[in-house]
Amino acid sequence: MPAAPRFVRRIPEGDTRERLTCPECGFVAYENPKVVVGSVVAAADGRVLLCRRAIAPRAGFWTLPAGFLEMGETVAEGARREAWEEAQARIALDGVLAVYSIARIGQVQVIFRARFAEPGFAPGPESLETRLFAWEEIPWEQIAFPSVHWALGAWRGAATGPLPAAALEPDGTGMPGTTPPGL
Amino acid sequence: MPAAPRFVRRIPEGDTRERLTCPECGFVAYENPKVVVGSVVAAADGRVLLCRRAIAPRAGFWTLPAGFLEMGETVAEGARREAWEEAQARIALDGVLAVYSIARIGQVQVIFRARFAEPGFAPGPESLETRLFAWEEIPWEQIAFPSVHWALGAWRGAATGPLPAAALEPDGTGMPGTTPPGL
Ligand SMILES: [Zn+2]
Ligand SMILES: [Zn+2]
Repeated sequence: MPAAPRFVRRIPEGDTRERLTCPECGFVAYENPKVVVGSVVAAADGRVLLCRRAIAPRAGFWTLPAGFLEMGETVAEGARREAWEEAQARIALDGVLAVYSIARIGQVQVIFRARFAEPGFAPGPESLETRLFAWEEIPWEQIAFPSVHWALGAWRGAATGPLPAAALEPDGTGMPGTTPPGL
Repeated sequence: MPAAPRFVRRIPEGDTRERLTCPECGFVAYENPKVVVGSVVAAADGRVLLCRRAIAPRAGFWTLPAGFLEMGETVAEGARREAWEEAQARIALDGVLAVYSIARIGQVQVIFRARFAEPGFAPGPESLETRLFAWEEIPWEQIAFPSVHWALGAWRGAATGPLPAAALEPDGTGMPGTTPPGL
């Protein structure tokens, strides 16, 4: 087994920013923000699907079916795959509910509004439990991540009407919260 | 100078997909989709800002001010930075106009609707020329990328009204083109 490379921060030739570089082989590990795709999936009775996480971080807490977009996927394909992997649910996407930047950890989350395309759901390998919650049953104090709160709030705000412009994270954008105004 | 590493495709331990791996030092180069951020920037008279590319690919062709999101940025911050870098324009964002997946090349493009926050624009180092175009003046046969066409079409469709749900790429999503329907 080769030793793990110890990367150093250096400005590569022709670049303007420091990048992680392997001093042994010269490889430049460009760190790019990663795309997370997920969905707020509602049943016909208006209850929403949440998954209790089996894995770190935030194991035991409730989240939306979501995960990292893979190469070769559209965001829509990725969101459908994650719903299958985490909740064994076949879903139909309605449109983009939110685009959340979590700049501190280099994530851009694209969250869809969705419904069940087929009945049935069950925990996938990364979930302890999957469950439908009426709005007043959502375990707010056991939600895994702030963006899950935001997405549920945006979903509730849109109700069953036409989707408005994508919600954005509530801070740090220079844009007013989750409801961008008209020009 | 160390030799450029020759990466091979291998499934790393604990993973389920082949990843590019350096056989010399064991580094796994996870290839993740990259996020492009950009804007359709309109002047008060309704003309839109395009930049003629000074660099490959598609040098000499017209595009929107757009580029790769950097670590530590929100998509809104990245879109504002790119408008400054490519068109020396200070812009105010209105909301997310479109989210385009270009799965073949591993890109997710988040395109905003925007206006000038201050008067003035000029070519940045990656642009040969920056210009405002009325709709009927847009050089359609000299547009750099299909997604620029799509974004201009989505912008025209939204006109100056409230932004609708984000447009999506016209194919391959399982969703009907650029206007996702209500539930
Ligand atoms: Zn190395
Ligand atoms: Zn190496």
